[in-house]
Amino acid sequence: MKKVNAGITFPKGYMQAGVHCGIKKNKLDLALILSEAPATVCGVFTRNSFQAAPVVLTKEHLKNRQHLGVIINSGNANCLTGKQGISDALSVLKSLSSLIGCKREELLVCSTGIIGKRLPIDKIESVLGMLLSSLHDADSKKAARAIMTTDTFEKECAYSIRIGGKQIRLAGMAKGAGMISPDMATMISIITTDAKVSKTVLKKAIREAVEVSFNSITIDGDMSTNDTVILMANGLSGVEVKESGVSYYKFVTALKALCLDLAKQIVKDAEGATKFIQIDVNGAKDNMQAKEIGLKIANSPLFKTMCYGKDPNFGRVVAACGAASTPIDAKRVDIYLNGRIAVKQGSASLNTLPGSLFKAKEIDVRVELNAGKSKARIFTSDLSPEYVKINAAYS
Amino acid sequence: MKKVNAGITFPKGYMQAGVHCGIKKNKLDLALILSEAPATVCGVFTRNSFQAAPVVLTKEHLKNRQHLGVIINSGNANCLTGKQGISDALSVLKSLSSLIGCKREELLVCSTGIIGKRLPIDKIESVLGMLLSSLHDADSKKAARAIMTTDTFEKECAYSIRIGGKQIRLAGMAKGAGMISPDMATMISIITTDAKVSKTVLKKAIREAVEVSFNSITIDGDMSTNDTVILMANGLSGVEVKESGVSYYKFVTALKALCLDLAKQIVKDAEGATKFIQIDVNGAKDNMQAKEIGLKIANSPLFKTMCYGKDPNFGRVVAACGAASTPIDAKRVDIYLNGRIAVKQGSASLNTLPGSLFKAKEIDVRVELNAGKSKARIFTSDLSPEYVKINAAYS
Repeated sequence: MKKVNAGITFPKGYMQAGVHCGIKKNKLDLALILSEAPATVCGVFTRNSFQAAPVVLTKEHLKNRQHLGVIINSGNANCLTGKQGISDALSVLKSLSSLIGCKREELLVCSTGIIGKRLPIDKIESVLGMLLSSLHDADSKKAARAIMTTDTFEKECAYSIRIGGKQIRLAGMAKGAGMISPDMATMISIITTDAKVSKTVLKKAIREAVEVSFNSITIDGDMSTNDTVILMANGLSGVEVKESGVSYYKFVTALKALCLDLAKQIVKDAEGATKFIQIDVNGAKDNMQAKEIGLKIANSPLFKTMCYGKDPNFGRVVAACGAASTPIDAKRVDIYLNGRIAVKQGSASLNTLPGSLFKAKEIDVRVELNAGKSKARIFTSDLSPEYVKINAAYS
Repeated sequence: MKKVNAGITFPKGYMQAGVHCGIKKNKLDLALILSEAPATVCGVFTRNSFQAAPVVLTKEHLKNRQHLGVIINSGNANCLTGKQGISDALSVLKSLSSLIGCKREELLVCSTGIIGKRLPIDKIESVLGMLLSSLHDADSKKAARAIMTTDTFEKECAYSIRIGGKQIRLAGMAKGAGMISPDMATMISIITTDAKVSKTVLKKAIREAVEVSFNSITIDGDMSTNDTVILMANGLSGVEVKESGVSYYKFVTALKALCLDLAKQIVKDAEGATKFIQIDVNGAKDNMQAKEIGLKIANSPLFKTMCYGKDPNFGRVVAACGAASTPIDAKRVDIYLNGRIAVKQGSASLNTLPGSLFKAKEIDVRVELNAGKSKARIFTSDLSPEYVKINAAYS
């Protein structure tokens, strides 16, 4: 597996475009990812009870066997827009499919941005011709930039693997910023590959990869109405990924690395973040317990503000840890902060932690429950006054 | 029921004291509440897996039939202190009981403050004589002040009721500030009454009252290791509260009002708070669902920052609401912000909300699920840059 300095168009047969349609002022706000050949596609979506119109429509379209592309707008989530929202999203796909000359069911749609405002379809439809004419098999940053909301940099990455001596390419782009939490907050990610993969295998692989990446990060514990991950596999490499064995192992390993790469970029670009925090929970009874405790710590405002304040106050970790719904045996718990023991068998360690412990940008928290063999790794950011300012003035 | 301008010593036969023992600099940090006559006492405690030494010891002492008083220190939580912590708390109670001339099991102990540091028992024990000699049946603000941590004002209130023509008095004090969440974060509350109540009835009444007050507030979703509510009933009014009927109804109604009064004071004094927010969730399938949704909204950093920013962005309410673990039928949901409809049957209302809607200090959110008959009411505060600053520099 090799990481490559490239973006969404790295796999064979994919094109991208990013243009300005006017939802946002002076910024790219409309992206298109198109495959030359029909692709097998699957998606993972928010579990929020309020699902935005594009989520509803894309899920419906995924019943179709194959797909050509995804159109994504930023600046407007087309959510809480009722039947009007569905017909607006449909209208965009109808216009786009007639320009491309395909069925509308072969296209998917994503939206991200403010909730509760009607999607300005006139603005979108008036630039569809330009969008298509600017399609390019390189210059991937344009599409990656057009899906950004409060993100401060484009998030993309690409990987290359060899199966039976032949190359398979994978690439992805994502947007995040705030409202990031399992299951997949306000984020959108489009992933492309030229591997030949059946829908069944693709579904299995994306679920495995999302669980340890996008579903293991949290910025603020909020879950959005629009979260979507879409994985397209157009088969143009001619290399097949089977349901098991070496080809599957190599493919899913690369897919996990790619998703984790994008997920970490999202955390690093979290609204107002000054720290990148990794939380490991080891020795849990089961994976659910490990993940719940990791998320309790990661989502604790007191823990997050202490990281911002560079204050290694392990009492915050302990309080969050013990607040999880599954009781833990406090007497067995060890806690390490940046490799230094802070709590040993449920009591404060006698070693005083150096005040400089949290000076670096990266913070590691490790909780050893000593109760079983399961573990989880969560990534999160700190909570800064800047986060409050950004979100106090969002709409 | 009548609210009275008084504090913890309002019921017959209670005394209080608040002194400076030196855990904190130049501030009162040690309080004592003592009853002249043995009282029936019960407590409600944190469900955090890490329980502080005073919580462990007080639970143990509550097995004793009757009690005389509670000693509370602030500035040190005596938590994560292992066996040493238990023996330190025991030592304080032994010294105090020998000065009073009672059994140590007749006394209870609470601590609040920083986690993971040994309790400075020398400082506490050296002022116990002074603490006892300054006991007073008025001037309740001293004890109320001595239990404060980052609180900015003393929290106390008193109520009077009449049962069968005779007066019963209830009063309480509390401290809160940060780390406030069900179940009862870092808060401590001591409640006194001169009613004559059996332990069984007292337990029933305090559980009912805590559920709709201290367990219905949240500042930051964090749950501390020291939360304690203690209710003392010394019977000196001579008026008995029975297990049911008018006397119980009147007593529990006053106890609820008293607990809610203190709980609201805690929310109003939340770290960095600029808003007082009430969230009603109506028409739920059951109470659990109503409470879960109310807390999801109340604990959402995006919701809290929008309240700070005076920005009636109902998308934040919707996203938090839909993120609850019990699915809701989005198409039936109506949402009101300060009485103005924002979401009707799952879609954004066409009326634009005035930008001035959140100008006042009080914000009301009402969610109508239209799915059943259960409801919950939650109180919370906003999230301000000041909260981050306070907690970034806590220890």
